[in-house]
This record gives sequence, structure tokens and C-alpha cells, in this order.
Amino acid sequence: MKFELLENAFLQQLSSQFRRSPQQINQLLESDAELLRLPDGSVLAVTTDCIAEEIASGLYSDPAHIGWMTVVVNLSDLAAVGARPLGLLLSESLPPDFPAEKLQAVQGGIAAACAATGVFVLGGDTNDSKEWQMGGTAIGLIPAGEPVIARKGANAGDVLYSTGPMGLGSAYAFSVLLAGGTQQVPYQPIPRLKEGALIRHLGTACIDTSDGFFHGMTNLLEVNSIGFQIDIPLSTMTHAAALAICQAKQIPAWIFLAGPHGEFELLFTIAPAKEKHFLEEAQKLNWKPLRIGICTAAKGCTIRVSKGGYIPIDPIKIANTYVESGGDPQTFLAQLLNLEASWQIQIQNG
Amino acid sequence: MKFELLENAFLQQLSSQFRRSPQQINQLLESDAELLRLPDGSVLAVTTDCIAEEIASGLYSDPAHIGWMTVVVNLSDLAAVGARPLGLLLSESLPPDFPAEKLQAVQGGIAAACAATGVFVLGGDTNDSKEWQMGGTAIGLIPAGEPVIARKGANAGDVLYSTGPMGLGSAYAFSVLLAGGTQQVPYQPIPRLKEGALIRHLGTACIDTSDGFFHGMTNLLEVNSIGFQIDIPLSTMTHAAALAICQAKQIPAWIFLAGPHGEFELLFTIAPAKEKHFLEEAQKLNWKPLRIGICTAAKGCTIRVSKGGYIPIDPIKIANTYVESGGDPQTFLAQLLNLEASWQIQIQNG
Repeated sequence: MKFELLENAFLQQLSSQFRRSPQQINQLLESDAELLRLPDGSVLAVTTDCIAEEIASGLYSDPAHIGWMTVVVNLSDLAAVGARPLGLLLSESLPPDFPAEKLQAVQGGIAAACAATGVFVLGGDTNDSKEWQMGGTAIGLIPAGEPVIARKGANAGDVLYSTGPMGLGSAYAFSVLLAGGTQQVPYQPIPRLKEGALIRHLGTACIDTSDGFFHGMTNLLEVNSIGFQIDIPLSTMTHAAALAICQAKQIPAWIFLAGPHGEFELLFTIAPAKEKHFLEEAQKLNWKPLRIGICTAAKGCTIRVSKGGYIPIDPIKIANTYVESGGDPQTFLAQLLNLEASWQIQIQNG
Repeated sequence: MKFELLENAFLQQLSSQFRRSPQQINQLLESDAELLRLPDGSVLAVTTDCIAEEIASGLYSDPAHIGWMTVVVNLSDLAAVGARPLGLLLSESLPPDFPAEKLQAVQGGIAAACAATGVFVLGGDTNDSKEWQMGGTAIGLIPAGEPVIARKGANAGDVLYSTGPMGLGSAYAFSVLLAGGTQQVPYQPIPRLKEGALIRHLGTACIDTSDGFFHGMTNLLEVNSIGFQIDIPLSTMTHAAALAICQAKQIPAWIFLAGPHGEFELLFTIAPAKEKHFLEEAQKLNWKPLRIGICTAAKGCTIRVSKGGYIPIDPIKIANTYVESGGDPQTFLAQLLNLEASWQIQIQNG
């Protein structure tokens, strides 16, 4: 398939010379973690993610937090396929003058995130580097005979859910990069492993919001050739801490759902026939999933607006805005506000 | 245990806050790849390695070669545990202005190494970075009921072998970094996967020479609390292309065995009772292992010298010389030549 999401088109080009393993269940970009059938019928889930730009830009600076996030970004991809983690590998690129006590704080953050999730570090690698980067690989397992889930699998009519309100990741990024850290945002995500395991059994497709809600939604939409009708106002699915910043800074509530720095919730679809059972099982986990809308056969996306009714939006355009803005947060925010202005005209006219 | 190899002591410190997985078979630094028992009895082998310093120092510069080596450094750790590769994950940190055709050359090198080894890229991650770095993770499997092998397991009396002559990696490094590339060194290693599979069935311990012969030998010696008696002159185990440079540049033959840039041979031990069977099986692979010496109960190391007899050497001192020289190739070479001078005195006096 041809990807309209710029990041996906780049990754497709990057992989064009590679052959795919006959053991691999998922096609390119169709799953948050790569899924590989083992001889006994179980499925290995493997994924690699590196924290680089977040450190270089100053978005992350606290060493223990950087250690924590190194674990989270990798485990969240296992959560999105509902795999039980077997462990983590680390790849730490460290400047030669990296202070020993700072390094121990990083390792402490890793250890804390592992303790919080019941996951073990299996091994790793360190390298001398001009730039500090923290890479990781997470490895998980899905037992033989059990269902698998990936980004692909959603059908028109399925219900779109998230594990919880979103926008926290981009509210955090706004606070650090554009508001001088004056806004307190409690940003210490926990990968949704147990929710992911339930979603794998009862859902049809799943992705994490590591790159934010709109980016995740657009990935689901693109890979499944469907559309979405979003039935709740965007403000309703926005995290309270993000909403508070929106009010303080006079920013529309949905803006933080469109930012590229996510909060590691899961965005997933459930066939209507399984929805009741799914909600009963979720309640047993003391978890209240957030019902967002419906998958539609018509591509594209409509959203309910606060005065009632729906307006069409272009999710690919929103998701590509960050890349097109050259990664500059100020330019990116200005472009989103331009989009907002065009919606307001539609709402006035509609 | 307390490690005398400086790199191992650092990695031990780095891991001090981590708990180990009860499913993990190997202890810290006791295996080239991490070994994890799966529920069906099979063993997963996972390892991660990043090419960073090699690019930053100019040791590697050809894009296709860098792609090739990204695959090799990771698969070689699977070879050292005799695992069948399931696939690779890539983590590419790329400068923002990385030319598209150069990137395709890198991916072509990866594809070529995958084709040469029958291995597939499963997925990966890219990041913007000031410095170009190529990370990878290799995943392999050992079937249920089959033996495993790691660095630990060698006993006094076992025979020490390598898959072939060594020193090629450091001869290449000498040529590029100290001889202005005037010496042609054919450096395109192929991971010893099929040899590793045989070694796993019949050997007692194995490590790759990714960091050179002396570093590998010292790791085996340290983790097994044994010593080595090396029964062939060091020149006999040195690759012909390395020997040619030694002659041209008037450098003692063993120097390239002590360099930290290896050639991805395997260094391994075989119990005497299995040696004959092992050699018969190796012959079926058209492979002639190089018999190096014997594991001894006495720690330390003695080497046979060309005029006959043995002299003691301190392999930990040799292996630590690179770190102690601050990673400067010229300083490192000078320090090795000092060691050589002290041996010559012993040989004269002995």
C-alpha cells in the first residue's frame, strides 16, 4: 500500500530493499510490535525504540525520568499488541564525560519503571557518543492458541475506544518547550500492559498514542482503509491537566491531541457484538475505557463539535503538520491554530 | 564475581540496580547473547549492538559496509551461542541532512548481509541525531531439548579453538587509522552461524572475537576462573593479511591479536573426550578449526614463543590497554610495543 502519512512513506522507502520473514505475521507498519510465529505456535513480539530527539531538544532532562521513559516507550508497543513482556535490552549512547552519579540516576529510573511493570532488563550495550541517546528493545510473548492484535484489523462499524483521556504528552511538551516549564504537567506514563492483554482478546485493532491521538488514529485509518466518526467533543477526550493549560493559555482544547508527543494510552477498536462483554471485563480491571466513536466505511473523519453536529476534518493533514513544520514547536502550534480557524468558519457556516 | 576487565567492571556497575529475570539462563556478562527459557523449553537468544565509535572515528566510512557491519555485529553474538536467527531489528540514528542515495546504500548493505546469512529485517526505528549511529538487535532461537552454550562452561583440560585465524579486524583498523588506508585489508566478516551451531552441540564455552582475540580470551578466562596455555606461536593464529602488514610495517605479528577491533571469529573450548567427534563434524562443514591451546586450572596465561618454550603473559593487562590508552590508536600501539619489549627480555633471559 501507499502511505500518505509522511513518516510511514519514509519508513516504507527505507525498507524497500528488504525481504520479509515468512514467519512474520504483520506487514510493514501494520503493528506497533513486530509479530513472529514461533515453532510451538506462540507469537514473539519485538520492538525497538530510542529516545534521542527528546533529549537533544531539552524535552526530557531529568536523568531518572529519561531512564523511566526508555522503558515505557518500548513496553508500550508490547502493550499495543497485548504481549506479556519477557524483558528489555538497553542500548545507551553516552558522552565520554557523562557523570557517574547522573548515570546511576538514569539506571535508577530504568529500575523503577521495571519494578512498576514487573519487567526485567536482560542485557544491553553502551557506546561513546557525542549525543546522549537511550535505545531499547522490548521482547514479549503471546501464548500459542491465543488471538493476536495489531494496527490492522478494524472494520467499518467497530467502536473506537481509548484506554483513557489523551493530550497529556503534548501538554507536557508545550509546558517545557513553549511555556518555560511554568505549567506543571504530571508526565510519568505507565504502559497499558494489562489493558492491552484484554484488548488483544476482544478487540480488532490497536495502536498506542506514543505520537499522540491524531497520529495514532490516522495510522489506524490508513492501514485499515476506513474512516472515523468521532462522537464525543474533542475536549471530552482530553486529559484534565491538558485542559487546564488550554484554559490558562487560551488554546483550543483539541490542540494537545494533535501534538506528536504522546502519553502512551492505547487507541483500539471493538466489534459491536463484543462491546458489552469487553466493558464487563474492563470493569473487573477497575478500568473505564473511553468510548470515542465509530469506524466508517467512508474514509476521512468527522468530529462532533460542541454546538452539536459533525464537521469533516483531514486527519492526515493534521498528523503530517508536525513533519511539515520542520519539527519547530512554535511553527507547529501556529499551523494547528490556522487549522482551527478554518474549522470555526465551517462551524459558523454549518 | 568481581571483574578485572575494565569494560566488564563498568557494565557490572551499570547493572547494579537491576534485578535479573528468573527465566534468564545466563548471568551478567556470561554470554554473548542473553538466553531466556521460553515456556515450551526452547531458548530465546537476544542481543543488541550499535555501531557508533566506528563511524565517529572514521574507521567505517563506506555506507554499504556500515550497513553490512550493522548486521554482522549483531548476528555474530547469535553465532557465539549457536542460535538460529529469527530476525533483526534496526535502530538508525541519522543526521537530518543525510543524503537519500547514501541512505539507500546503507540499506543495500544491510540487505546484502541479510541475503548472505539468510536473515530477515523484522522492523526498526529511526531517529534524528547529530551523529550517525546504527543500532541493531538480533533475535534467535535454540530448540527445546538441545544444549546451550555461553561464555561460561570451560573447564581445565578443555581444548581452546578458534573458527579461523584472527587479527584481521585490528589490521583493518591499523590500515585505516594509522596507515592512511595504504594497506589493503579485505574486511567483510561473515558471522559464523553454522560453525556456532556445531560448537553449541559439542563445545563447553564460546565467545566471538568482536573485540579481538586477547579480549575474547580474557573474557573466557575471567568468567571461567581458568587459565590458558597457548600451544602455537601467536603468528600461526594471525590472519595472512594481518601478517603481511606486520612484515611491511615491521610490527610484531601478535599485535593485531591484541587490538580491540575484531573479525567476528569464534573462540571456543571443547572437552577432550569430544574433540575427535567435533573435528569429524567440522570437516563435514568443510571447516578446519584452529587448535590454539589448553585450558589450565592455574589462572593466567602462558604462550609458546617461536624459539621454543613458554613465557607468561598478563592477558588482562593486554585487554585493558586499549581502555587505559584512552582509545587513541597511536598511544595504544606504543603501549603494546612496550609490552612486547618486556617479553623479548623474558625470552632472552629464559
